[in-house]
Amino acid sequence: MAQTSEGMKSQVEILGEALESGSFKQVARILNHGLSPTDIAHLLESSPPKERNLLWKLVDKDLEGEVLLYLNDDIRAYFLSKLNAQELASVTEDFETDDLVDLLQQLPDTVIEEVLHSMDAQDRQRIEEVLSYQEDTAGGLMNTDTVTIRPDISIDVVLRYLRRHKSLPEMTDSLLVVNRKDDFIGVLPLTTMLVSSPNATVREVMNTDIEAIPVEMTRTDIATLFERRDLVSAPVVNQNGKLVGRITIDDVVDVIREDADHSLMSMAGLDEDEDTFAPVMKTAKRRAVWLGINLITAFIASAVIGLFEQTIEKVVALAVLMPIVASMGGIAGSQALTLVIRGIAVGQIGGSNIRWLLSKEFVVGALNGVLWASVVSVAAIAWFNDPKIGIIIAAAMLINLIAAALAGTSLPLLLKARNIDPALAGGVILTTVTDVVGFMSFLGLATIMYA
Amino acid sequence: MAQTSEGMKSQVEILGEALESGSFKQVARILNHGLSPTDIAHLLESSPPKERNLLWKLVDKDLEGEVLLYLNDDIRAYFLSKLNAQELASVTEDFETDDLVDLLQQLPDTVIEEVLHSMDAQDRQRIEEVLSYQEDTAGGLMNTDTVTIRPDISIDVVLRYLRRHKSLPEMTDSLLVVNRKDDFIGVLPLTTMLVSSPNATVREVMNTDIEAIPVEMTRTDIATLFERRDLVSAPVVNQNGKLVGRITIDDVVDVIREDADHSLMSMAGLDEDEDTFAPVMKTAKRRAVWLGINLITAFIASAVIGLFEQTIEKVVALAVLMPIVASMGGIAGSQALTLVIRGIAVGQIGGSNIRWLLSKEFVVGALNGVLWASVVSVAAIAWFNDPKIGIIIAAAMLINLIAAALAGTSLPLLLKARNIDPALAGGVILTTVTDVVGFMSFLGLATIMYA
Repeated sequence: MAQTSEGMKSQVEILGEALESGSFKQVARILNHGLSPTDIAHLLESSPPKERNLLWKLVDKDLEGEVLLYLNDDIRAYFLSKLNAQELASVTEDFETDDLVDLLQQLPDTVIEEVLHSMDAQDRQRIEEVLSYQEDTAGGLMNTDTVTIRPDISIDVVLRYLRRHKSLPEMTDSLLVVNRKDDFIGVLPLTTMLVSSPNATVREVMNTDIEAIPVEMTRTDIATLFERRDLVSAPVVNQNGKLVGRITIDDVVDVIREDADHSLMSMAGLDEDEDTFAPVMKTAKRRAVWLGINLITAFIASAVIGLFEQTIEKVVALAVLMPIVASMGGIAGSQALTLVIRGIAVGQIGGSNIRWLLSKEFVVGALNGVLWASVVSVAAIAWFNDPKIGIIIAAAMLINLIAAALAGTSLPLLLKARNIDPALAGGVILTTVTDVVGFMSFLGLATIMYA
Repeated sequence: MAQTSEGMKSQVEILGEALESGSFKQVARILNHGLSPTDIAHLLESSPPKERNLLWKLVDKDLEGEVLLYLNDDIRAYFLSKLNAQELASVTEDFETDDLVDLLQQLPDTVIEEVLHSMDAQDRQRIEEVLSYQEDTAGGLMNTDTVTIRPDISIDVVLRYLRRHKSLPEMTDSLLVVNRKDDFIGVLPLTTMLVSSPNATVREVMNTDIEAIPVEMTRTDIATLFERRDLVSAPVVNQNGKLVGRITIDDVVDVIREDADHSLMSMAGLDEDEDTFAPVMKTAKRRAVWLGINLITAFIASAVIGLFEQTIEKVVALAVLMPIVASMGGIAGSQALTLVIRGIAVGQIGGSNIRWLLSKEFVVGALNGVLWASVVSVAAIAWFNDPKIGIIIAAAMLINLIAAALAGTSLPLLLKARNIDPALAGGVILTTVTDVVGFMSFLGLATIMYA
């Protein structure tokens, strides 16, 4: 399997050459017979627009559906927009409910209507039910392909019942026990069933202390739950305790990946679904917004400096040293910020421990402030042989590192409380704080001392 | 289950109060009867040192082992260091191989020796084998608790064989088929077995196109594999194709979480195992290193400014505006940097598509350069009513945004090629580039135009 990534690569190379040489027959053969749908999706995500469209055209119609499933939202939406309802319906024929729903949720309502109409009544009803749930809840994440049994039958009967199936749904690690009213009662793990006597009843061996997931539970809470309990699949129940579906680890892994990606990408003002190989104009527009926002903070910093033009005119050395104070504050602040954002994401920070964390970061900021203030002041004095400037930069550095620590620690929590995404807005606001405090304290102190 | 997080919280509150009021009996009761080992671990990770040590003392001896498993490396290492070999041996009695190995790998060799000696020969041999593999490979990640069967027996026999077990290993979704020489032949998914006729032989129904994971495959490749193939567990074979163990999704989820965390934390110079509530001194020391590194880059930027003191003396407005050019470069660069670091992590970027990406980012940088250069120049002229300064900042902005795009895109690849972690080193180097280019172009052009 180590050969896979290897194999993949070489195949990608071959594909590349084949594409350039225009031998599309060969490309199509490798695509549709050499690679799995996930590999094809990965290949498309790794290709520039031109190659991507070419490759997509060469993918077999009957593979398109599965490939779409593994593409990131951006790219999937793009290819979906090129299919009409008929094509969509045929492409998504043998999708699992949750996959089909994921896909439908990206489409305009009119198209959804068309697709639903092209399905038989039972399927349509199942889909419509799932569509009625929020995309980011258990309802939106779940599958309706549950294998359910009654508590009062014997294991032997269960085994015979299962044999009547042609196959069991993927990721079936347990059978779900329900009563006549479809109320969820418990879970019968296959591993338990296989070591139980054929004469035992389901009720005797089933596991009842598994709590079902409420249909409105959020994706992130579900992910935490799967991680904490090492689950492979879990039943989903509605408000009345009726079994409505199940969630499987493969979908949860995607949630974990996306949530983790979200923090990383947001902190650079990027979307976790950002398409690395998106067309230039699309990317340029998206980036422009972020740069514009940051330009405002840059101007605020400049305005602060502007207040002290006379002082700088007197002592140009200030202009040389002032970026040091600001940038050190930015670095120290972003460390606290990142730590807290991660802590909030994993549900580690909140309530009781915040006060402790704030005072800790304060002390850490002060300690590092003292350390680097002395280093910087010595360097500054040596550079401009002016003791005054050493004292000024030392004081400013200490002030800014403490401000940075406090801002970096409290900002994510304050933003979170206002339902603003800390990963997205935190960095911008933090730099504004550290720039303003940095320049203000440094140039302000200078104005006093050189007055 | 939505109540869990809720329930957790309130219990944490209760614990907090109980701790403060010093009613340890109550705390111990909640800890050992109200919470699961994962919840306890989470609680410890969410507690400041003092409370943490107190809580740890109150955890039942027979729970300690499992709790240790779910703690992050930093905190686990700390608690482990307080146990002697005897305690360790008893704590880890009924661990799975991979868990025990994870834990041993954090201990000094002398202690490992002692622990191994306190085990019976068979266990010791199993452990020593796994210990011989690299921690970050399939060998280090795998479990040896496989359920193996022969290809020539009937399903009926398999079922009877399984019933002789008291229980099957966790996450057993398939039985592993091996020949007399223990060579891996194929996989019999439980779901397949359960829908097959009892008279069919394993060979007839087993799945042989599953490739086993080579024992030396890296953690990250394994994670990609599990994600791409939606696996719950996978067999691990040694160089001779002999079955040596299996890897389960729960361990892979941890890898995915850690890898994703790594990029986020490293970009702020933090370790993904960073303990949010680590003691002040420990944190202060770690942060100091990062600040020191960044101080160097800050001084480099200052040195560049220093070259132009005379110019700044003549036109103080330059000192006011220069941070804008540098910071916009930093923002633009970090967007490209983050995108490429993510792209490398998910194996999206490499070989054929790099040239395309570079030229794309170049164009994106140029477009945004032109846009924001004009905005900034207008603002600058309006502010200082001096057309010259408008032209200078516009040109500098354009130059720096292009430089930022190229540096942000190429740096991760250059670092990766030298086996330097791009997430860790990328940001620092990038800021140096954008600061130097920003100040150099802005002040340089000014020196020429105001000469």
